[in-house]
Formats: sequence, C-alpha cells, structure tokens
Amino acid sequence: MISGVKPQQSGQRAETTASSPGDAKLGIADYLRVRQRSEAICAPLEIEDYGVQPMADASPPKWHLAHTTWFFATFLIKPHQPSAKPFHPAFEHLFNSYYNGGGEPFSRAKRGNLSRPTVAEIAVYRSYVDETVSELLAADKPPALQQSLLDTLALGLHHEQQHQELLLTDIKFNFGHNPLYPALIATSEIDSMAQPARGPSCENFQSSGASLEQDFTLFEPGLVDIGAQQGFCFDNELPRHPVYLTPFGLAKSLVTNEAYQAFIDDDGYSRPELWLSEAWAELQQHSRRHPLYWCWQDGQWFEYRLDGYHPLVANAPVVHVSGYEAAAFAAWSDARLPTEFEWEYAASKESNTSGNFADSGHLHPQSQHQDHSQMFGDVWEWTSSSYGPYPGYEPLLGVLGEYNGKFMSSQWVLRGGSCATPQDHIRRSYRNFFYPKDAWQFSGIRLARNP
Amino acid sequence: MISGVKPQQSGQRAETTASSPGDAKLGIADYLRVRQRSEAICAPLEIEDYGVQPMADASPPKWHLAHTTWFFATFLIKPHQPSAKPFHPAFEHLFNSYYNGGGEPFSRAKRGNLSRPTVAEIAVYRSYVDETVSELLAADKPPALQQSLLDTLALGLHHEQQHQELLLTDIKFNFGHNPLYPALIATSEIDSMAQPARGPSCENFQSSGASLEQDFTLFEPGLVDIGAQQGFCFDNELPRHPVYLTPFGLAKSLVTNEAYQAFIDDDGYSRPELWLSEAWAELQQHSRRHPLYWCWQDGQWFEYRLDGYHPLVANAPVVHVSGYEAAAFAAWSDARLPTEFEWEYAASKESNTSGNFADSGHLHPQSQHQDHSQMFGDVWEWTSSSYGPYPGYEPLLGVLGEYNGKFMSSQWVLRGGSCATPQDHIRRSYRNFFYPKDAWQFSGIRLARNP
Amino acid sequence: MISGVKPQQSGQRAETTASSPGDAKLGIADYLRVRQRSEAICAPLEIEDYGVQPMADASPPKWHLAHTTWFFATFLIKPHQPSAKPFHPAFEHLFNSYYNGGGEPFSRAKRGNLSRPTVAEIAVYRSYVDETVSELLAADKPPALQQSLLDTLALGLHHEQQHQELLLTDIKFNFGHNPLYPALIATSEIDSMAQPARGPSCENFQSSGASLEQDFTLFEPGLVDIGAQQGFCFDNELPRHPVYLTPFGLAKSLVTNEAYQAFIDDDGYSRPELWLSEAWAELQQHSRRHPLYWCWQDGQWFEYRLDGYHPLVANAPVVHVSGYEAAAFAAWSDARLPTEFEWEYAASKESNTSGNFADSGHLHPQSQHQDHSQMFGDVWEWTSSSYGPYPGYEPLLGVLGEYNGKFMSSQWVLRGGSCATPQDHIRRSYRNFFYPKDAWQFSGIRLARNP
Amino acid sequence: MISGVKPQQSGQRAETTASSPGDAKLGIADYLRVRQRSEAICAPLEIEDYGVQPMADASPPKWHLAHTTWFFATFLIKPHQPSAKPFHPAFEHLFNSYYNGGGEPFSRAKRGNLSRPTVAEIAVYRSYVDETVSELLAADKPPALQQSLLDTLALGLHHEQQHQELLLTDIKFNFGHNPLYPALIATSEIDSMAQPARGPSCENFQSSGASLEQDFTLFEPGLVDIGAQQGFCFDNELPRHPVYLTPFGLAKSLVTNEAYQAFIDDDGYSRPELWLSEAWAELQQHSRRHPLYWCWQDGQWFEYRLDGYHPLVANAPVVHVSGYEAAAFAAWSDARLPTEFEWEYAASKESNTSGNFADSGHLHPQSQHQDHSQMFGDVWEWTSSSYGPYPGYEPLLGVLGEYNGKFMSSQWVLRGGSCATPQDHIRRSYRNFFYPKDAWQFSGIRLARNP
Repeated sequence: MISGVKPQQSGQRAETTASSPGDAKLGIADYLRVRQRSEAICAPLEIEDYGVQPMADASPPKWHLAHTTWFFATFLIKPHQPSAKPFHPAFEHLFNSYYNGGGEPFSRAKRGNLSRPTVAEIAVYRSYVDETVSELLAADKPPALQQSLLDTLALGLHHEQQHQELLLTDIKFNFGHNPLYPALIATSEIDSMAQPARGPSCENFQSSGASLEQDFTLFEPGLVDIGAQQGFCFDNELPRHPVYLTPFGLAKSLVTNEAYQAFIDDDGYSRPELWLSEAWAELQQHSRRHPLYWCWQDGQWFEYRLDGYHPLVANAPVVHVSGYEAAAFAAWSDARLPTEFEWEYAASKESNTSGNFADSGHLHPQSQHQDHSQMFGDVWEWTSSSYGPYPGYEPLLGVLGEYNGKFMSSQWVLRGGSCATPQDHIRRSYRNFFYPKDAWQFSGIRLARNP
Repeated sequence: MISGVKPQQSGQRAETTASSPGDAKLGIADYLRVRQRSEAICAPLEIEDYGVQPMADASPPKWHLAHTTWFFATFLIKPHQPSAKPFHPAFEHLFNSYYNGGGEPFSRAKRGNLSRPTVAEIAVYRSYVDETVSELLAADKPPALQQSLLDTLALGLHHEQQHQELLLTDIKFNFGHNPLYPALIATSEIDSMAQPARGPSCENFQSSGASLEQDFTLFEPGLVDIGAQQGFCFDNELPRHPVYLTPFGLAKSLVTNEAYQAFIDDDGYSRPELWLSEAWAELQQHSRRHPLYWCWQDGQWFEYRLDGYHPLVANAPVVHVSGYEAAAFAAWSDARLPTEFEWEYAASKESNTSGNFADSGHLHPQSQHQDHSQMFGDVWEWTSSSYGPYPGYEPLLGVLGEYNGKFMSSQWVLRGGSCATPQDHIRRSYRNFFYPKDAWQFSGIRLARNP
Repeated sequence: MISGVKPQQSGQRAETTASSPGDAKLGIADYLRVRQRSEAICAPLEIEDYGVQPMADASPPKWHLAHTTWFFATFLIKPHQPSAKPFHPAFEHLFNSYYNGGGEPFSRAKRGNLSRPTVAEIAVYRSYVDETVSELLAADKPPALQQSLLDTLALGLHHEQQHQELLLTDIKFNFGHNPLYPALIATSEIDSMAQPARGPSCENFQSSGASLEQDFTLFEPGLVDIGAQQGFCFDNELPRHPVYLTPFGLAKSLVTNEAYQAFIDDDGYSRPELWLSEAWAELQQHSRRHPLYWCWQDGQWFEYRLDGYHPLVANAPVVHVSGYEAAAFAAWSDARLPTEFEWEYAASKESNTSGNFADSGHLHPQSQHQDHSQMFGDVWEWTSSSYGPYPGYEPLLGVLGEYNGKFMSSQWVLRGGSCATPQDHIRRSYRNFFYPKDAWQFSGIRLARNP
Repeated sequence: MISGVKPQQSGQRAETTASSPGDAKLGIADYLRVRQRSEAICAPLEIEDYGVQPMADASPPKWHLAHTTWFFATFLIKPHQPSAKPFHPAFEHLFNSYYNGGGEPFSRAKRGNLSRPTVAEIAVYRSYVDETVSELLAADKPPALQQSLLDTLALGLHHEQQHQELLLTDIKFNFGHNPLYPALIATSEIDSMAQPARGPSCENFQSSGASLEQDFTLFEPGLVDIGAQQGFCFDNELPRHPVYLTPFGLAKSLVTNEAYQAFIDDDGYSRPELWLSEAWAELQQHSRRHPLYWCWQDGQWFEYRLDGYHPLVANAPVVHVSGYEAAAFAAWSDARLPTEFEWEYAASKESNTSGNFADSGHLHPQSQHQDHSQMFGDVWEWTSSSYGPYPGYEPLLGVLGEYNGKFMSSQWVLRGGSCATPQDHIRRSYRNFFYPKDAWQFSGIRLARNP
C-alpha cells in the first residue's frame, strides 16, 4: 500500500528534499530528474556492456532501462490513458519482470539473449513513455484521479531508483568477472581514511593499528513501534505496529576488511560449527572462500571496485558478503546479527539518515571517521530477520500486489542502504531483502549481541 | 539448552505423566519403554522394507534404528564411560546424521545404499548400547554427573521419539510410492465421523452437508509470553520471552479434504496470484496438483494411508500439504496462516494437550467431533513463521549445539504434533520445522485472519 | 595432418579454383579475401548482436572474429615470428577455444559474458594480426619454412571458413529465438521452385502434388577407396584407405518439408519404436516436436529463416533436424541413413561439387529442380556413422593435434556442406561432425536403404 | 534376429557343449540349469542385499531375478499360452526394463525403491513361471510353433545369462561402495601367478621383474568376414559380412595393473592431450583418478574384489577401467585400442574360446601364464568401435526389436567376455556395449597399433 493515499502529517522528513519521490507535490521535474539519473549511470558504458547477463540474477543494463519504462507504461499510462498506443506489442512481454497478473513474463534467465531491441531503440522507447507521462501529468484531472496518478508516479520513481542500484550492482558483477576488469568510473582518492591492508611480510596482525574489538551501544528492553510513519513507503513497511524488544547491544561501527581477514586467517571457512547447515552445504559446492570481488594475488588481497582493481583497504567496511558469511562471521565473533526490529529501533535514535550514498559518487564504502555510525549508506546491513509480512500486512491491489508480498519466503532483510543507493530513496523503515546466499549487492555486517 | 539443567519450578505439567522423557526422575524403565517403541513401530515390516530410501529426506527404517542408537553411544556413553569399547568403528561414521563436530557424516542421500550392516546386526547394536546405558544408569555417581547424565538421557529419548515419527512418515513415503501400496497396519473403522467425499456424479458441491465456512476465535492484542516454561524442552524453545500480538482470529477447526477439494476445483493450482514466488516456480517444475498421497482414479479421489489405499474422507482434515500449498489455500480463503506466536498463545488457552496422537494407533487424522479444536495431534499445523532463534537463544554446548540452531534458515515452523507423534513428546511450546516445499510429514492447515 | 606437407600429385581438383585455401600457391590475397568475408558476414549486425550467446554451443559473433584471429596469432605468428609482441596478454586465454596444450581456455559457456573487449577493439586486433601475417608472407624464407608457413596458413583459412559457417548458424540461433525475429538479410524470392505448404483447410495431403516416395540409385558391392586424395584436407580425412561396401540404395533427392510434415502428422514424435533409446529419453525431457525454427501459428507452419519469418515451403528440403530426428524419420520411412562411406562413394560419382552454398547468398536450402542431386550444398546430410579415426589416422603434431582427434566419440558424421558453407571449403571427403541431438546447423536428411 | 530361425549348418562349435543355450536341442533341463544358476549367484546374499540400487545403472539383485522371469512371461508364455493367468498384473509394469512396446516401464532409477515385492514373493514368481514354461516345453506342438518356442527360449536363456553377469557387477558395485566391504565369496589363493604390486619403499619401478613392453602379433591386410556364423547369436551380430582390414598389430597380452600404475605415476590423469575431449570434461567433474575399486591406503594400492579387500596384484590384468581410461592409456602407450573387427579377426585365429570365465569361480581376472592370450574371459576388452548396425542389420520383429538396435548410439563395443561371464554365453562374434564412461563392468585393455 502506498502511504500517499493516506492523510499526511505535517512533520518534515529531515533526510529528503521537497522534491523527493515520496513527496506529495511530485511533478514532472522530479519525474525527469529520476529518469535521467538512470541514463546517467549508464553513460560510461560501451554499447556491448548494455546486453550482458553474467548470471540469472544480474540483468542487462539495457533490460533495466526498458523494464522501468515498462513499469510506467503498464501501471501509469495504461490505466490513466487507455487510448495511448503501446510503443511495441512485444515489449509488454519482453520487459515484464515477474508480474504474472500482467501476462507471462519473458524468461528471467534469458534476458541477456535479447540482442534486440537495441540500446538506441530502448532510448526511443524511454522518450516515448516520458512524453506520454509528461502529458498525463500536465493534463487537468479530478483530484481523486490526480492523487491516484501521483501515487503510482511515486511508486514508479522509487521502483526506478531500486533499479538504479541494481544497475550498479549488475554492472559491477559483469565487470568484476571479466578478466580485463574494466572500470565504470575514474579512480580517485575516494577514501580519505583508508589504511593499507597488511601485505605479505607484515609481522603483526593489526596493520591498521586499530583494535578489532567492537564497541556496542546497549538498548533497554521494551515495546517499540516498527514500520513506516509518513511519506512514501512500500507496502511491506506497513502497518506500523508494536514490537517487544529484549535488551541488546548494537555495534557502533561496521565490520572492516581487516576484521574479516582475521576470520579468514582463523580458518573461518573451514569450521562447520560457525555456519548454518544450508550455508555449509553451499560452501562445499562452491569455491569462494572470501568476499566476492576479493582476489589473492602476489601475497596480498586485492579488490575489484567500480573504479577498478585495487589493493584492499584495511579499515574500510567489508562489502559483498552473503548473509551466510555475515552470520558465520558473527558466530566467530561470539556475537550475532541484529534483528531488523533492533536495527530499526537503533536507527530511530540516529539524528538523520545521511551517509555515503550513490550521490557521493564514490560507489564504494568508505572507512569510518569521527565515530560516525554509518547506519545509513556505505553497505546494506544483513539482519537475522526472515523477510515476512508485518501483522495486518496488505499487499497493493491488483497486479501491483505482486511487487513485494510474493517474495516473503526464504529471504533475509537488509537495512540502511548502501553506497549504490540514491540518498532520497532510503528511510529508517526501509526493508531490502535478498537470499542469504547472495553477495553481489553492496552488503556488509554490523554485529549485535545479547547484553 | 536442556532446561533440566536449570532449577525447576514446582508447577505440574498437566499433559505429561510422571515418567515422560522430560521428567527429572527418568529411569531405566523409561529408557527401555521408549527404545522398545521404535522397534514396535517396525515390527510389521519385512526385512526388505528396512533399507529403502525413496528420497534423500526419507531415511531407511534401519538407519533410524541405528542412528538413534548412535546418539546414545556418542553423547551419553562416550563422555560418561570413555573406556567402553565402541560396538564397531565404522558405525561412528555410518550413523552420524549431521554432526560435523563428530567427524564427517556418511552421505545423507546414500543411506539407502547400505545393505550392510543387516537388520539383525543393528538389533545387536541396539542391545549392546541398551545394556551399556542400563549399566551407566545403575552406577553410583556424584549428583552433578548424575544430573548431566539424566539431561542427556532425556534429550536422547526425545530424539528417539522424533525419529519414531520420522519412521512412520518415511515408511509411508516408501509404501505410498510403491505401486503395490502395502499397508503398515490393518484397515479398520478408524474414523467414526467420516463422511464420503463426493463422487463423480454428485451434483452439488458439499456432499458432506457441512459448511466450508470457518469459524474463528478472536484474540485481543497484548504482550504474551512465548517459550517453554518447565520440564524438558529443546534449546530452540528458550528463552521464554514476551511477544506483542496484534488482534487476530484463529480458526476453530482444521481445513478439511472437502474444503481443499474446493480449492483444487476452483483452479487454485493455476492461479499465480495465490502463490509465493518460490512456490509458483516450484509448481512449474513438478507435476503434483493435489496433496501428496491423493490419487484421482475412476472419477473420484483416493488417498494412501498407513492402513492402505482408500476413498478420500470428505470431512477429515487435509494432510500432507506443503507449506506453499497451505499458504496458497489460505490466500484463496481470503485468510492467512497464523504466526507461531499466535498459535502458541491460542494453545495456552486450551485446557490440555490431548488429541489424536500416535498412541491412538490410527496413524491418520480423524474428522472433528464435538467441536474439539484438534490443536494437538492429528496434523502438524503450518505457521507463517520462519524458523529462527528466540531473543537470547543459546545452543547447547559442544557438538550437540548442532542439534537445532544450524537449521534456522529457510524453514517454517509447524505446531501441535500429529497422529504420528508420541503423545508425551508434545508441548505447547514445541517447534517443529520443515522446508515449505515439504509435504511428507503429517502436515495440515489451520487458518488465521486479521480481525 | 595437412596433406600439403606431402608430395602433391599432379591431378587437378575440379571443385576448387586456383586460389582456394587448399592451394599450394596461397598468397596474401587469398588470406585477405577469406578474412574479409568473416567481416562481411557480420556487416548487417548491430553492435548488440555481436556479444550474445543464447546457448553454450552458439558462440557470440565477436568471439568468432577474435578466435579465428587468435588462431593465426598462436599457430602462425608465434612460431614463425617469436619476437612479435602479443596484441594483448589476456587474449591468449580469452580466445583459446579448446586447446588445452595452449593454456587453460576461457570457459566456453561464458563467452557471452565478455562485454569487453568491444567490437571495435576486436577489429583492431584483427588488423594487427592481418598486418603481421602479411609481413610474414612477404618475407624471404628458406623453402622448408615457407612450406610450413603455407601449410599453417591453409589450415588457418579453412578454420576461418568453418567459423564463417558457425557465424551464420549462431546468428540464426540468436535471431530465431528472439521474439522480434530480426532478419540478417533482405527477404527475396529466393526459391524459384517453392510450393506453399498445405494450409489448415487443405483436404488432401500432398498440396505440392509431388509424390513423397523416394527414388533410389542402387550401388553395387565392392571395395572402394575412402578419404582425401590431394589438395588441402583435414587430418581426419586421411589416410585414404579401402572400405568394403555391401550393396545399397541412396535417395536421389533430399527429404522435403512436406515429407517431414507427414511424419509429424503420423505421430512420429510419439512412437518410441522409431527412436533410438537416447533419442527417446531426450525427447521426453524437451518439448520440441518439429524441426528447430518451425512454428505452428494460425493453423499452418511457419519457419524462421535468415531472411525472416515465413510460411513453410512444402518442397524445400527439411533443415535443422537433429541426427535423432533424421534417424527416426528414416525408420518411419522403412529406410535408414547412409553410412559416411556409402555417401562418399556415391559422391565420387557426381561430376562436380557445385550446389547451393553460402556464395549464392540464399542462406537457406532451395527446392530441387531438374533432378539435381543436391549432394553438395543446401543441407549437411546426417549419416549413420559415428565420427572416428580412419585406420592409420595420425593427428597433427603438437597442440594442433587437438583440432580434430579428441572429438572422436559420441558424434555423428555429416557430409556434403550446406547453404551456409563457403563453396571452396567443401570436398567429397569432407567430414563434418556434431552430436546427434544437435539441430542448429543446417542439417537435413537423405535416405538410404538395403537393396 | 535369432539365427535359429535360419537353416543351420552342420559344422560344430568347439566352444559350446551340446546343451548350451544356443543349441537347437534345448530342453527343459537346460532351462532349469540356467535359471538355477541365477539363484545360485545370489545364494550368499543377505535379504538386505537384494534390494539395493547404488546407482541408476546397477539394478537390485531382486530386480534382475524378477526381470529375467518377466522376460519369459512376456515373450514366451504370453504368445504361446495366451490363456495363462499373469502372476500379478503390476509385475508387467514393474519388471519391464525398457520395452516401450510392452507398456511403460517402471522408472529405471527407482528400482531400488521397491521394497515390495519381497525376495520370497519373487521366488514364488520364478517358480510359477518356471512351471508354466516346463509345461509349455512338454506340450505337443506343430514343428513351426515348436521352433519359434525354442528360438525364444534360447533368447531368454542368453538374456538370463547376461543378467547373471550384471548380477555380479551390480553386487560388486554395491559391496565395493560400502565402507564395510562385504565379500560375496570366500577369499582363496585364486591367482597362482600373482606378484605383489610395489609398495611404498620400492626403489625400482618394475617390482614384478616383468617388462612392461608389449609384444604384438602382426596381421596382414585384407578382406575378412565379420559376424556370427552359426548357432545362437543376437541380432546385432548379423549379417556376416566382409570388412577390409589394413595391417595392424594386436598385443599378445592384456594390460596389467603394474603397467596402469606406471600411467598413473606418469601423471596420466593430468595430461589433457591423452584424453578425448568428452573424457577430459568428465574427468574435471569427478574425482576418480584410478580404476574403480582401487584404493590408495597406507602407501600402497588395494583393490576391492568379490572375495574382499586385498593388496593389488602387480601382474594381473587391470580391470574396471572406463573406455575413456582405456583410450587414454593407449595414447600414453603410443598405441591405440583395436577396432572390433581387428579383434574379431584375431580371435578367429585362436584355437578355442576357453579362458577364465565365471565358471572358474574366481570372479576376478587372473595373471597371465604360459603366454595364454587371454582373449576370452578375464576382462571385456574395450575396442575403439562405436556400437552400430552391421550392413543389412535387421532387428527382431515386434517388441523384441528393442532388445539391441535402439542402443546403437554413443556406446562402445567390448569383446571377449570376462571372469563374470558364463563360459557357454560367449562367442567370437559376441558384441557387448557400454558407454565409454562406464567402469563397473569387468572391463580391461588390450592394445593395438599400426605396423
């Protein structure tokens, strides 16, 4: 359910500007701004890069650009301007992601086989839909219709922002598996606090000089309210409801590469007692024994980042770990992952939701400075919570009801956004979800513990 | 953690007798009684039936008999009588189920390949271990050691009871997939309230005359305590902790075959909007479009039961549905599955935990009579809760820590016990767990809804 | 073994021109002509089309362009001009197809993931290698070295021609599985003898009016010589050796679409007695029940061709059938497939090897006219012969020994070339080989029978 | 085609006795003798051993006993005594191996799931069919019918003999993969010429003192006749036809364990140039790097044999190698495998077909003594020939046509019989066939080479 259909309170959201996609006063300028950002992300790509799908989960950039357009064509134009001619009849099938109620989607794993339509044709498709949406927004309508239009517009823009993050993670997956390691952005001194990871000849473990011990903030037990309050949100963040929390501690900082390296060096990947049963079985089938994109070469760790292939930074947050790895690291640390409720409650104590988001242009997590909690941005934080419905959850009506609800099994919740998330897309109540085996998102670790 | 190691409160558990496996006064008689029941379950089997493993999840009866014995040999005899000679060195490997901390287990999927040791040899193994355990229990020991021994004994007996249920479900899976449909027990008039399911020529739907509408008991919102209170329990039922429940309704009866038939007839298996995304994908890969063991023949439904192949009983509870099927049925009913907390809270209002358990000898769910809730026994009830740790959860120490905790991902909780569960094995706080795709347990459906 | 290293006989090969790749007087002009043809085939492609790999067997066009270049770089430049700087160190790995002796090849199934190097970069790679080869050919060398160079040159050009055919079949596989059905070449009246296949309302079967009965040429028994005689050939065509043939008949024409349609209509795909055991098992797993690229729509058969999507032509040769389908059709026809020796012997009686090859530009098999046998061109003809070594077979020395010999298991021989084969690439002794399940080559059927 | 339906020549077959299954005077005594041998093979088994199917290809002993009985019930009793009551209707489905023309066979890979019917019930089935067959044989019939009956009887008995060998290989596969290594027969001094394989501390390679160099018999080129001549044979051995052989050499002895050990020690399993492409791919997926049943333990090689687990015998023939391994060994030896025609021609020069067959009771290949060629018995000898039809091949009529012909793809021919073959089952023209990846038959290596 899009909260926009409910009366809004007057309180201001500190973390978003007046024109964020969740704002009731959304207009054509907001629409165009968000749409153009998708294209800006892809600007450095070669034509060849737009079509590649190196795994079923990592869709081609071209497909993302078309699918987000399909979303507006299907859920905004079709119902609000039924007379509009579809751009191309086959596109309704080709760029439907998973909405069975909207006809049979084209096979997910075969998106990378579609050399046609071309990138140029998809650009025309985008323009065609953008024009129609602009006309729709400009037209006079009764207030109820106008509100319904704006609700769907907001949803479509947040949807496009989700795919902006996926564009980055999917491009990274492609480039990071190509032996030529192409870079999406120029290399720069992106991390002002960076310390080199220990090399082959270091004698003592903590090359950064920092302690690997975590400091924890302690929280008292009690009933807390969980879920979205106002402004735009997805249906899965509602309804806001009470949850009882027992006392817990939450780490004041993210787990670093250096700490994760200690886990590896302590044979973390060879000790079944640290791993969930499913995780251990998965581990026996695959060879990865380090975060995705790490590479051991010439006696030291390197990491592929969107700005190229570089030596690992010791005190930067570890990123691209699976939920299984996060849980095993936590077990090794004699700690655990937080629940999503613990995380959200702690987040409610943060003064704002600022952080290292995609807007900073780094596109990589940064080392902590000045005790900033890094609760928002940098890396999505794995929680121990299975992704499920809140009590009283109601999916959106109609085909859009497939947006979130049908994925509520076997996945885990992640919180807080990452360096690839648009800043005005995130909120304290935001629930991201992936399978615990997945590591290609910018996912990291914050520890929790019992008091 | 076995609660027995903690100080017990004086309150009495209504549902267990003085000699239940959870009792602090457990003795050799209890041990032998439970052990002999495993053998009694297998008594009607032919030698050939002991070795079959028709799917990786359904272990051979012979293996169950050996593995439960291995459990006592490994966790009770080895630490408490280290000088005892192992029965056979290879058995430590062959009959280890999944305890990586105890050496590499023999491959799960290959248990059915072990024609040796023979059934007779495993009987000797059982006798050998039973004798040693008897001697251990009879010996004088310091009180702390004695308590530790009794705690492990209680765990071992509950473990054996779990495998007694698996013996029945695995034998059923074998017999139910053999074209000869052998019966484990004699056919009898087991269901006194049974009504025939509608045949091919019935004109109106409700052949039982009963309404398919569900009555719901409504529960008020509030904080409730969840988890085990006293007596034996598994570590996953602890610690007892407060949970806030929003208002909900829970059905007064189980979903019947007749109601499930209406779901099938209404094309329930062909409507993606009713199914979780994973469930729909699973459905496209497999052909089953009805509960496991149902068979459409000559214009009517039949069902394989442990007493043979019979026409379906209309008003008996539907059984052998997967969690996916249960959730889809609930969606079709405009309802949902209860959470495990809702279920446990409602169960706390039941005056006792009696019901149709394995002790009745029916080995099949029975039709409701006299508004009995059937909360306990008959069928395990799928909940919407992912199986996870309670706040403050601590696994048992050592290798036994692998008993429960490492399975806390991707599985769903089921509650209440079934017609294959020993009566004194169940409690209100008991958490069973299986993958939502699984249907070979005696699993059924109780609906919940928002008020 | 390249026959060029052996003394050549003076006899003239009727089927090749003076400048064919097998000619001892090969020069730079021949090299550039063959190389440019690869690029000409790709000229109509969009950049997006160069990178797609819709199945593991169908490599991206870009990869073919690079791999054929790698072949010259590895086997011609490297040994003959060791001082030459490699174009890019990673390319030796990326574009190695299967020569384990030349380092570990990049994973075959992942060629489509390589968005880099770009098409433009590969064009530069081609130019770089072409220049070096040109210089090499122009340089003065001792005669023995010169001969060795020319032998490898001939092999490299035949290799490139093989990939020219694969370029066409792989592009067709991509386009033919894209719902937009792009065409590589313009539609034209390509088949002067074409007759429409019967539509939905036709009453009698043979819409073409032609008889589906096959005429056979009968051959007497006796010892015949099999294998290459002179000019260039692959090592698998040698040594020429005697084979004893029992009497046989070989069909005077190829099996037509119309005849194959009759097989389909006669439930050919549902009768296990017509199929090899492996073929029947394969059939139960996949859904195709007609030649690849056929599509039943609006009550009639259509076919995707490289010039687009068109109604099926009744009397054109059936194409894109697997060896399994060819054998089943033969069994249904109370006939069999010819052995490769029968085929070659019959081919030796043909006055020339002319036919509908890629040079005609049709890129699709044509209907028979004037009793032309169509032994050469149009479609590769499945034989019943497993691909194996001739008696006395010797692979090329060194890494090039992996060219042919290591594939001599489980594949079937096809003969005669197709409408996608360069005309001067074919010879009577030419042995093509694919798995009997494969259908994406231009493969068709000629029947044989016992007298 | 059963040659018995053709006029027999008067010549005597040296290698069979008057009452062999191929004899025209077959009677009830022959039938009972062959049938009883199947039961004798199983006599040492425990009931548990009868039901195990450790891989899809290795059927349970119980199933073999039932299937061979089904064969007589289906192909002999049903047509010749249509009024006979089937023993059990479900058995026609359960024990049909692969004859699609006889109804849908029960799933091959699930034979091991059938705990029922029991071993005792199958014994009753066998008796029932044996009685009916005895009556049929005793009854008066017109000569044509009698001949047809005898032809099918001969086929059924040879079929049963084939399954007698499979009983041994499948039991060995089961026992050889059980960590308890049960023995089928008592250990004895079975190999009078056996020499111990070198242990860990041996300094020079050839512990047996024998040369690993092979002696070859040379054969002149020419036309030879291939195929069965008289007496019983399978349809795949006909028609006898001329084949032209180029000159070749055939090794005078089988490849020994010692020689194969040298191949292993020379990194034979790590050198792709020695392996067929398919074989190398297979090798990368599986971990076996030695013959099946070899085990490296405490610094020396052991081998599981049907008489238990023993140190490897140096000069005994290597056994249980796949065709891929045989071909790789041959390449390493700078030799090749013989074609099946070369083998048969050489075999025609042997004075008789005696050797170490199952009748000797060793059930394991024996070391060579006194230059005996060991062409017959000991091990099946892999040839380089793909299994295909002889020119003019005609399958048996009706459902029995599925016996051989439909397997003529992707398999390789083996010749000569093994230590598990009944002696009167073998002939010079006998063609066995398995996939080149298979190693669980008693398969070994004899080298050939070009002159």
